[in-house]
This record gives sequence, C-alpha cells and structure tokens, in this order.
Amino acid sequence: MKDSAFASRVGKINEILKQEGIDCFLVTPSSDMKYLCGYSIKGDERFLALVLAPDHEPFIIANILYELQVTETPVTEFTYWFDGEDPFSLLKTELEKRGIRPKTIAVDAAMPALFTLQLNALYPDARFVNGSPLVQPLRVYKDRQEMDRMIESTAKADIALKRCMDKGTYWVGKTESDFLAELAYEMTCLGLTAPGACVAVGANAAVPHHNTGDTVIEMGKCLLIDFGGSYKNYCTDMTRTYHFGEPSDKFKEVYHVVLEANLAGEEAAKVGNQLQDVDIAARKVIEKAGYGDYFIHRTGHGIGIDCHEGPSAGAGETTLIRPGMAFSCEPGIYLPGEFGVRIEDQVLIEEDGTTRVLHQLPKELTIIK
Amino acid sequence: MKDSAFASRVGKINEILKQEGIDCFLVTPSSDMKYLCGYSIKGDERFLALVLAPDHEPFIIANILYELQVTETPVTEFTYWFDGEDPFSLLKTELEKRGIRPKTIAVDAAMPALFTLQLNALYPDARFVNGSPLVQPLRVYKDRQEMDRMIESTAKADIALKRCMDKGTYWVGKTESDFLAELAYEMTCLGLTAPGACVAVGANAAVPHHNTGDTVIEMGKCLLIDFGGSYKNYCTDMTRTYHFGEPSDKFKEVYHVVLEANLAGEEAAKVGNQLQDVDIAARKVIEKAGYGDYFIHRTGHGIGIDCHEGPSAGAGETTLIRPGMAFSCEPGIYLPGEFGVRIEDQVLIEEDGTTRVLHQLPKELTIIK
Repeated sequence: MKDSAFASRVGKINEILKQEGIDCFLVTPSSDMKYLCGYSIKGDERFLALVLAPDHEPFIIANILYELQVTETPVTEFTYWFDGEDPFSLLKTELEKRGIRPKTIAVDAAMPALFTLQLNALYPDARFVNGSPLVQPLRVYKDRQEMDRMIESTAKADIALKRCMDKGTYWVGKTESDFLAELAYEMTCLGLTAPGACVAVGANAAVPHHNTGDTVIEMGKCLLIDFGGSYKNYCTDMTRTYHFGEPSDKFKEVYHVVLEANLAGEEAAKVGNQLQDVDIAARKVIEKAGYGDYFIHRTGHGIGIDCHEGPSAGAGETTLIRPGMAFSCEPGIYLPGEFGVRIEDQVLIEEDGTTRVLHQLPKELTIIK
Repeated sequence: MKDSAFASRVGKINEILKQEGIDCFLVTPSSDMKYLCGYSIKGDERFLALVLAPDHEPFIIANILYELQVTETPVTEFTYWFDGEDPFSLLKTELEKRGIRPKTIAVDAAMPALFTLQLNALYPDARFVNGSPLVQPLRVYKDRQEMDRMIESTAKADIALKRCMDKGTYWVGKTESDFLAELAYEMTCLGLTAPGACVAVGANAAVPHHNTGDTVIEMGKCLLIDFGGSYKNYCTDMTRTYHFGEPSDKFKEVYHVVLEANLAGEEAAKVGNQLQDVDIAARKVIEKAGYGDYFIHRTGHGIGIDCHEGPSAGAGETTLIRPGMAFSCEPGIYLPGEFGVRIEDQVLIEEDGTTRVLHQLPKELTIIK
C-alpha cells in the first residue's frame, strides 16, 4: 500500500485474520473500507470490494466505472469488470491466481445480502464470518489524525447550528423542513458531507427519531435539533433543544434535569471508568427526578467514521474508558404528546487521558423571543 | 393491513412465497420495505424487520425506540425489543407462536451481513434466498399513484436545478461544493429528501461518478450536474451539462453527439421494444461519431423507490417495454483529462402506452456568459 497509516491498519488486520484462521476478508463500501483504504464512495448494485488476505498484497475488485476513484486509494492492485460480466467469478479467479481457495471468509457487517448470498453460492462449503468485529477494536481507539478530524468536524457542526439559531424569531412560521434545508446548506458550505437532521417541534420532539416534516415552528413550542454530517470521513452528532417563547414550568424542570444528566454523564466519562458508568451517572439524575420511565434509550454511542460505532455508553457495557475513545452523551426525556428534550455532545478522550467535550455550543436553556 | 394498496402488494408477495416454498420473508429498512408497508426510516444497527409469511398477518419487529414510527405504517401487528435484549431470539419466539419453523427464509437484498449472519446462526439448517427479486417484478410496473409521485418528484428536480442555473455567472469562482450546497438546499425546500449530486467541473466531468469537491467553476469549462432526491419515497435522477464561456469546437461536437444519442434512446423507449433497444439506439449514435470507446456504461437504469432498480436499459436486456415502467436515458462521452458530457432524463411509460419524458428542463447546449 502507498500510505503508511493505511498499510499499518491492513497489516494489523492481516495478523488478526491469520490468528483467526480466516483466509480472506471482503470489504464492500462501508466505514470499514474507509478505515482500511480511505475509499469513501457509496456502494451500489455493482460489486466492489477491498480484498485482504494474509501474506498477500490487498487488492480492489471494481466495475471499470470506478477505476479513477479506486486508483486514488493507497491500494496498488486492482482488477476490473465491465457491465454484463460476472464480478464473482472474476473474484474467484483472482483469488485462485494468488493460490487462495478460501475455507473461511470474513465479510464486512454492512455487506448487503445481494452480495453475501452470491458469495455463499460461489463458495458453498466455506464458513462465513462477520469481519467488522475484527476491525472495530482498532477503530475504537482513534489516532491523532482521526482525533483532529473529529475536532474539526464537530467545530463545523457548532458553526452551522449557530448560524441557523442566530436568525432567532425568523424561524417562527417556518417548518421543520425549512430549518433542515438551511442547516444542511450551512453544513455543506462548511464541507460537511451527508448532512442529516432530525428537526422536531413540540410534541414531535417526544419521538426520539422523529422524521423531519411540515410541522410549523411556533411561539410556545420547543425545537429539538439532532444533526450531523461527515468531514474527511469522520462524523459529528449533536443535539440541542431550544424553546420559542416562554416555556412552561414543566418544560424548564425537564430541561434542567436533562442538562444535569448530560453534565453528570460527561463527568463520568473519564479514563478508568467503564462506559456504562456514563449511562449510570446520567440515568441516576433522571430517575431521581422521577422521569426514569421517559428516558428510553442508552445514554450514548461510540462515534467515528460511523455515526454509531463500537461500544456504547449503555447498561452492561463494561469496556474501560481509554485514550482515543469517542462517544456521545445524550440523555433525553420524552413526554408523549407534550414535548421532548435531549442534549447531546460528543466526548473525546485525549492521548493524555483528559476528557474533551467536543461541542462548544452553549447548553443552558435558550429561549428565543 | 390498514391500507388496501399495501395489503394488495403484501397479498401478491405472500402468493409468490407460497409458490416458491418460502416460509417467511424478512424485510429490513430498504426500498422493498417502503414498497410493502411505506416505512421509510433508514436502518441502523438495531434489527427492525417486516415479517411476511403466507397465511399470516404481517408483523414488524422493532426496537421500542421506533414504536411511534412503525405504528404509522399500515401494519397492525408489532413486537418490540429493548436495548440490551436479543431481537433474534424474539423473532424466533414470535415465529414459533405462529407455528412457523422456517426451512426456507427470504431476506431483502439490502439486508446487511450484520443481520444475515445472525439469522444464519439462528436457523443454521435453513436455506436463505434473496427475496428482493420476488418483489422486483411488482415494482417494475408502477401504479397510478407511483407514477404521479415520480412526475411530482422530477418536476421538483427541474425547478431546483433551474433556480440554481438562473444565477448564471454568479457561479464563476464558486466551487463544485458550493453548487451542491445550493442545489441540495433548493431540493430540500421543495420537499425532496436525501438530496445528492455529482457536480463536476471540466476534466472532473470525465469521471462518471466524480466526488464533488473544491474545483472552481471557471469560464472556459463545462459543468456537469447529475443529481436527485426522493419525494414521497420516489426518486428523481437527472443530468445536465452546461458550459461557462464559449466552448471549443470539440466540446460542441461531443455535446451534440450526446444530445442526439439521448434523443435516439428516448425515441426507442416505446412499448413493444426491448429495453436493450434504448441502449442500442443511443450507442449507435455515439459509435457512428467515433466516440464509442468513451461511452463506458449502460444507457440507463430502472428507477422508482430506488434510484437504480429493476432491469436496465443495457446490452442484452430483452425485457419488453410496457406501461408503468420508468427508467433513465443517460448516454455520455468521457474524455479523460479533458471533459465529459452526459444528458440524462427519466422516461415513464404511461398507462395508455405513451412515452413521457419526465424532465422538462431544456437540453440544447446552454452557454453561460
């Protein structure tokens, strides 16, 4: 491979494959592929894979359409197929050329059944395993370059949301979709790709994964924005909940409980603790306030190339918090038919063990009027 | 099911499952799921599936987080799991409750290996098949509601691109990413979701699936925009190539060859012809002009809920063109290091057999100066 960081990652994976008795690892376009060779194009119905095999140079099999993109990766060996040809028999030929008749084949977790079923037919006697858990332990601990990308990515997200919120009461009368359009525009201008958001007004905010729609932003209602994008392949994910006009006492109470839970979770996010301690700390605050039944998800998820990856900050997760880890802290209280509040940051554990909360946008209750 | 259109689709699939000896069909979030029950949320690492089984009411298995969304579908039976629980043993229990001990299980083509491998472990003796090809023949022929959505979707795309191009020389000095940001903003404002585009300046346009980047739009260069989004679950996909400043004679020649090929392809897109006739007609024009080696992909792809679906307008595709079909016609000529031209419309075959070119944005060479 042409790049030492990627070569080192591939080398580590090849070592693991050898230990596990896996003859080859087929990685289709996915976060694993981004991690192992930087190729970031979305997959489609045309089979494209990075092929790793211990003691062999990695190669990419792709439709000729993608020639210019795959040759930009650090990989140095390629084999192409044309529309109308069968990529799977080409794959078999290429493996045989290298003396590989695989008995155990790893595939990435995201590989669609469209391909896994054809691989099953190509190698009916082979054992297939999920290769992504072999990559995950490497991905959990970010190197300096990865950390810097996450810092850049989240800083851009802060700016994008700030630009939107600076418009204040301009939003009254606009819809969730209008807000999404502008937020996505700001993110794109800042270089964040795949911008996405859950924008939820009032009772919609009580649906943790609400589909942004035509509900109008109004005085007297909350506005929850959970959004993110990707910068140089690294994700940002953040939630803030605002209120247009004076909130009810109940909203204020709930908001402060969630904020306290968010801060308690971040306080527990330190080297030596287990990931579940973040969940325990945040949940304790919400339960103590009597809202335990309305906090219906884990406190956080690992983040990196995928928005959700690696071990989560949830019940039973005993993984120790260590330098290089990044995960979200996002407690919420959801009152069906009324409103919802979630406050989400990403937390990064620096090389020296300090905890860095990546988002800098204020979290105190902000009332827009 | 609560909706007759979806109930009819599920009924047809259940009939096919019975004929094929398939005991159940597990459909994770995908275009098949949108088609069969309208559920359109993106899948994640939490197993969620529509479960079809002949002679049984369809049900959805989902994490409790998605309760409010799945109950909005026409499905009437649900089973939920909580974070920390195993959705696969729950699935097995639910199937057993219904007396189903599956020997043959269909999965949708998009189901990630993360789930297929766990299903393999859950039912080690079962035969797994790709269920999507059973749905595809239904999806190829759109009903009136689907056609109307495609007409709406493409009309919105026309407006979005027109709004951007109306800015004329404003774009000189801006980057591909700037253009993408604005185009995505216009699409989002018009209600198109998942806006995406390949925006390519000059030589970048010679890469059929170029990654939009920081290349600056300049006088003397072409601008190729291949873009789309989804409206009420139906995709639009369109390409136009413009030129800033006076183009070279070579560009003009290539442009007119591609335009002629596009029109010839659309002319051949009529009931009674085979899909490959569209490819043959378009390719003949380009080959005759001596650019055959620079047209490196099929002429078109089926389109609907997926941007690429069903049979393609490519070599060897003998499927007859019939009412309800929708596909793209997008010949291109790519001169590496120089420029590329592609012109893409979607074509819809109406119920009465007439051919309707969905995009109305002019295709004549447009020079911006």
